[in-house]
Amino acid sequence: MGFYVKKFGGTSVGDLEKIKNVAAQVYAAHKAGDRLVVVVSAMSGETDNLVAMAQQLSKNPDPREYDVLLATGEQVTIALLSIALMELGCPARSYTGAQVRIVTDNVHNKARIVKIDQEKIKQDLDAGKVVVIAGFQGIDEHGNITTLGRGGSDTTAVALAAALNVDECQIFTDVDGVYTADPKIVANARRMDYVTFEEMLELASLGAKVLQIRSVEFAGRYNVPLRVLSTFNPGPGTLISYEDVKMEHQKISGVAYNRDEARILIRGVPDQPGFAGKILGPISAANIEVDMIVQNIATDGLTDFTFTVHRRDFNNAMNIIAPLADSLNFREVLTDEKVAKLSLVGVGMRSHAGIASKMFQVLGAEGVNIQLITTSEIKVSVIIDEKYIELGVRTLHEAFGLDKESLK
Amino acid sequence: MGFYVKKFGGTSVGDLEKIKNVAAQVYAAHKAGDRLVVVVSAMSGETDNLVAMAQQLSKNPDPREYDVLLATGEQVTIALLSIALMELGCPARSYTGAQVRIVTDNVHNKARIVKIDQEKIKQDLDAGKVVVIAGFQGIDEHGNITTLGRGGSDTTAVALAAALNVDECQIFTDVDGVYTADPKIVANARRMDYVTFEEMLELASLGAKVLQIRSVEFAGRYNVPLRVLSTFNPGPGTLISYEDVKMEHQKISGVAYNRDEARILIRGVPDQPGFAGKILGPISAANIEVDMIVQNIATDGLTDFTFTVHRRDFNNAMNIIAPLADSLNFREVLTDEKVAKLSLVGVGMRSHAGIASKMFQVLGAEGVNIQLITTSEIKVSVIIDEKYIELGVRTLHEAFGLDKESLK
Repeated sequence: MGFYVKKFGGTSVGDLEKIKNVAAQVYAAHKAGDRLVVVVSAMSGETDNLVAMAQQLSKNPDPREYDVLLATGEQVTIALLSIALMELGCPARSYTGAQVRIVTDNVHNKARIVKIDQEKIKQDLDAGKVVVIAGFQGIDEHGNITTLGRGGSDTTAVALAAALNVDECQIFTDVDGVYTADPKIVANARRMDYVTFEEMLELASLGAKVLQIRSVEFAGRYNVPLRVLSTFNPGPGTLISYEDVKMEHQKISGVAYNRDEARILIRGVPDQPGFAGKILGPISAANIEVDMIVQNIATDGLTDFTFTVHRRDFNNAMNIIAPLADSLNFREVLTDEKVAKLSLVGVGMRSHAGIASKMFQVLGAEGVNIQLITTSEIKVSVIIDEKYIELGVRTLHEAFGLDKESLK
Repeated sequence: MGFYVKKFGGTSVGDLEKIKNVAAQVYAAHKAGDRLVVVVSAMSGETDNLVAMAQQLSKNPDPREYDVLLATGEQVTIALLSIALMELGCPARSYTGAQVRIVTDNVHNKARIVKIDQEKIKQDLDAGKVVVIAGFQGIDEHGNITTLGRGGSDTTAVALAAALNVDECQIFTDVDGVYTADPKIVANARRMDYVTFEEMLELASLGAKVLQIRSVEFAGRYNVPLRVLSTFNPGPGTLISYEDVKMEHQKISGVAYNRDEARILIRGVPDQPGFAGKILGPISAANIEVDMIVQNIATDGLTDFTFTVHRRDFNNAMNIIAPLADSLNFREVLTDEKVAKLSLVGVGMRSHAGIASKMFQVLGAEGVNIQLITTSEIKVSVIIDEKYIELGVRTLHEAFGLDKESLK
């Protein structure tokens, strides 16, 4: 018997059969005596339909009305899941974000949760009901409907878990946990029983897209134990928590990668303060997200400045940079549109030297040339030719022994 | 410049092009200086989709959750219409039933409106905005979402019109007004400029299904002038109000009809109190709606008892009645499954004799046999063989001169 927030994403509630399956799982936990708050997303595809309708009416739909529109997706799911639960004989009650009073700021389309009224939830739980809450949405102090942005249902789940002080926030998805590498590339990739918040942040942002990064940050800040499990295959999943869960941590947790990057190298840049800002300012103003940024120490008053963007933004970025050559006085631009990022992540790195050099050595032995390197406290990332990405992932996974169970 | 509630039904907002068309019409009225509250239904087909999903999950979906589900249909429309209005440059703001606080009782699926908060609406109107409100839905005093039942959007519009004391409540539909007879049957049927609430009630219930009968009752009770217009063809439509609008009223307003009726005649009924109840009680308990009921004065202690039901309910009704023959001691049951109801409606009837006899005479002259007759203060209805229904409608329409303009 425990107290859980269980969150089911769009794929998990993608059709009526899947909703029945979720209802059966929730009812089983309810019968076992758990106190349960269930957070659901819109049925998969539903939000896309709503977005498409709005955009056929306006290129810039009014943000307030856009939220009124999108919020219907989750409202449909809470009603259907509650109906399915009651059909099984499981007492249940649904709430929209507005009804349960998930109060947010008034930044439409990307609102932040300010507070959650717990009264109705606790009353229903005490009365033996499963409480079903619409993810992704809230209400501002004036009664306007707000949404938290894509993937906001995870954030709703974590916020509820923090407010209610539950035992665990369980995120049900279509994968059965967080792996040491992409199982599609590494046959013996291993599901991790535990991973730390910091590692999960790096793994999420680097391509192991199991959880929304914002909800992981949120869970870490409020120390909400987060468990990733599969909706379709029973199992323990992966628990994301602080480091002390593990007696001794492996140096490296996992190998992550990002395909579809493009690299832009600006050569012969005058080593003057503010150059990076003059390049990246217009890039950022065009809503192009920059991933890695590398600049080396200048020699002879000139340096090279390199950054990466998503491949779909490459042409836009070049259209912005090319006209700057004269005014910024740089020599040339060298690009590579087919690169990928390969990263090793692990809190163990903090206290262990030599990880990076071993990484470069084993990649070099396989003929994989490293174009760029960046490091943080718990990760090392390199940019390589995209064609080597699977080889790179497998090489690192084996070299660092990630297929073997960590010590407990 | 006026103050109007404009209501657009599901067909009028059935797709994005139609929503744009509604937005253009509303914006034109706004630019002309009108104060406007717009009530919309769910896009046509949408409510049916939601109902189908609920019923695939449960034969008896929980009424509270059913309302949470259905309310999303109108919420989608208010957002899309507001986006379309703002795209045209027309300031607009949407409200769900819960947001604007259309407070209802807590009878889910067929709630009744208790009160409407006007504060937000008036603020927005004073600020020069078009206010777009979801029809069909409200909120009970505990914050639960409620719905008013099918066709409830008309009721929402009339309730808002009454609360705000507007000049007119305009109901936009796919017909351009109320006609003296079905234009599909009578080529020279005439759109009426005016019709009284009482006449409209009879015309609506008798087959001229332009408006929900409940909203007409509601409008009459609060004396809200109601105008029926076409969304697609501009025109004055038909104004429904109290009699004093017209200087002198024609005796007869229109000819209505109902196909698909079935007649059940129970012969040789002992003339004892309570017999009708013993027959109609089980019929009503089986949710079969009875339309006309006729019983004549008994002769020799025996009488005949006749009633009509919709043809789809005929077999069910007979299965209930047949086993009662012994216990209720009646002689025989004679039925006709192919009858139709033909009615003349008009407030002028109150003060004019001879309408009924002229009706019977002109029908008789065409060889149309009258099986049953009922009358009320403002209508005369007869049951005839269904094959004569078009002939009957045309005969009455011509005999009573309904193609000619009424005196003003």
